[in-house]
Amino acid sequence: MNDADLPLPPAGLEDALRAIGRERYHDRHPFHRLMRDGHLTRGQLQAWALNRFRYQSAIPRKDAALIARLDDPAMRQEWRRRLVDHDGEDGDEGGIARWLALTDALGLDREMVVTGEAALPATRFAVEAYVRFVAERPILEAIASSLTELFAPAIIRDRVAGMLANYPFVDPSALAYFDRRLSQAPRDSGFALRYVLEHARRADQQAAVLAALRFKCDVLWAQLDALHHAYVAPGHVPPGAFRPDGDGC
Amino acid sequence: MNDADLPLPPAGLEDALRAIGRERYHDRHPFHRLMRDGHLTRGQLQAWALNRFRYQSAIPRKDAALIARLDDPAMRQEWRRRLVDHDGEDGDEGGIARWLALTDALGLDREMVVTGEAALPATRFAVEAYVRFVAERPILEAIASSLTELFAPAIIRDRVAGMLANYPFVDPSALAYFDRRLSQAPRDSGFALRYVLEHARRADQQAAVLAALRFKCDVLWAQLDALHHAYVAPGHVPPGAFRPDGDGC
Repeated sequence: MNDADLPLPPAGLEDALRAIGRERYHDRHPFHRLMRDGHLTRGQLQAWALNRFRYQSAIPRKDAALIARLDDPAMRQEWRRRLVDHDGEDGDEGGIARWLALTDALGLDREMVVTGEAALPATRFAVEAYVRFVAERPILEAIASSLTELFAPAIIRDRVAGMLANYPFVDPSALAYFDRRLSQAPRDSGFALRYVLEHARRADQQAAVLAALRFKCDVLWAQLDALHHAYVAPGHVPPGAFRPDGDGC
Repeated sequence: MNDADLPLPPAGLEDALRAIGRERYHDRHPFHRLMRDGHLTRGQLQAWALNRFRYQSAIPRKDAALIARLDDPAMRQEWRRRLVDHDGEDGDEGGIARWLALTDALGLDREMVVTGEAALPATRFAVEAYVRFVAERPILEAIASSLTELFAPAIIRDRVAGMLANYPFVDPSALAYFDRRLSQAPRDSGFALRYVLEHARRADQQAAVLAALRFKCDVLWAQLDALHHAYVAPGHVPPGAFRPDGDGC
C-alpha cells in the first residue's frame, strides 16, 4: 500500500491500518520476545515495568488533552471512560494503581517508580512526544494514534502467558492490569476505529491517519529499543538511569 | 555535590556545572569513541550524520523559541547571533548548510537528509523534547540547557582529528561546520555561563540550572544510544529507519 492508492473504501483503510500493526507493532520487538519466552532476568523485568510506568501514567494526560479539544459532549463522554479506566473511581482502583501492584510484586521501590527519576530519558522523550501529538495534531490524527489498541489483546495474552509460565516471582494478582485491559482495549479501539473509518474519507485524511498510527508504533518501539540497549545488549545504561543489581543483569 | 550543598558561590556553581559535563556529556558515549577511533563503517557514519542533522536543523527553532520569550532587546540581540550562525545571512551560508556539505560528502541523498524521514524516531523524540524544554521552562533553565556548549570544543577537536585520520572518504572541506563551531561555541557558552552564574543565586534556582544541564546531556546521550543500538550493537534498525547498504553495517 502506498499513498497513491488512496482514498480507500472503509474496509480497505481498516486493512491498511491492520497491516501497519503487523509490520510495526512492538510485539515484533526482540525485547518483547525475550520477555514472553522467559529470557529476561528479574532486573530486566524491573527495568521494563519501571519504564513502562512512565508510559502508563501519562495516558490519562494524553486522553484529557484530547477531551479538552472535543466540542461534542457525547464524544467527550465516550473518551472520558479512558480516564476512569486509568485513574479509577469510587471503590475501583484504576489501571495506574494496578500497574503499581506489578512494580511492587517485582520488588521495585514505589517512590522510585512514581517519581520516574530512574526511568530512561529515551522513555520520557517518547512518552511526551505522544502526549504532544494528541494535544496538537488534528482530532482525526489524535484519535487514530490510539489505534495501536487494536493490536493490544494479542500482545497482552502473549505477555501474561509468558510471564506466568516463566517467571516464578510473578503471580496472577500482579497481572490484574492486563486482565482488565483485555476487555477495555477492544471497546476503546472499536470506537476509535469506527470514528476513523467514518471521518477519514479523503486521500490526505487517510494518509494522515496511517501516518499517525505509524508514529504511535514508533513511540512504543522506541521504548523497547531503549530498554533493550540499556539492559540487554550491549547493556549501556545511560548516566542516572536505573541499574538493577544482584541478578547479573 | 548534592542539592543540600546549595546555594553555592558562582565559582562553585560553575564547578558543579562542569562536573556534570565530565560525568554525562556525550564525549563519554561508546559511539563517540568508536567514531573518534576510526571503528565506524561509512554506513554507520552516514547514520550518525543523517540523524544528527535532525538535531542541528532544530537548533534555530529552539533559539527562536527562547528569543520569543525574552523581553530585553539586548538579550534578544545577543541570542539572535545563534540564528545567524545556523541559518546564515547574505554571503555567508550557515551551519545547517555546512552540515549538508558533510552529508553530501558521505554520499547521503540530500532529500532524505532534509526531510528527516529516515531518521530514527528516538532522535526526533529527543530533539523535540529539547525544543519544548526551551520553549516552556523558565528562562534561566532554558539558557542553562545550552551550557553543553562549554564542553563542545573538546569533542569537536576530538571528532575532527579522528575523522580526518581514520576515514579516507572525509576531507577537511566536509568538516567546515566544526571549524566554525570552534569559535562560535565558546562565545555563546561564555555568555550563557555568565548569565546563569549571575541569575542563579538561590538554592532552588541552582538546583533547576543543574537539572537543566543534566536534561540536555540526556538529550545528546539518548541520540547516540539510539544510533548505537540501531547501527552498532545489536544493530536493530527500527521499522522505517535508514538502512545503510554495501559496507557490511
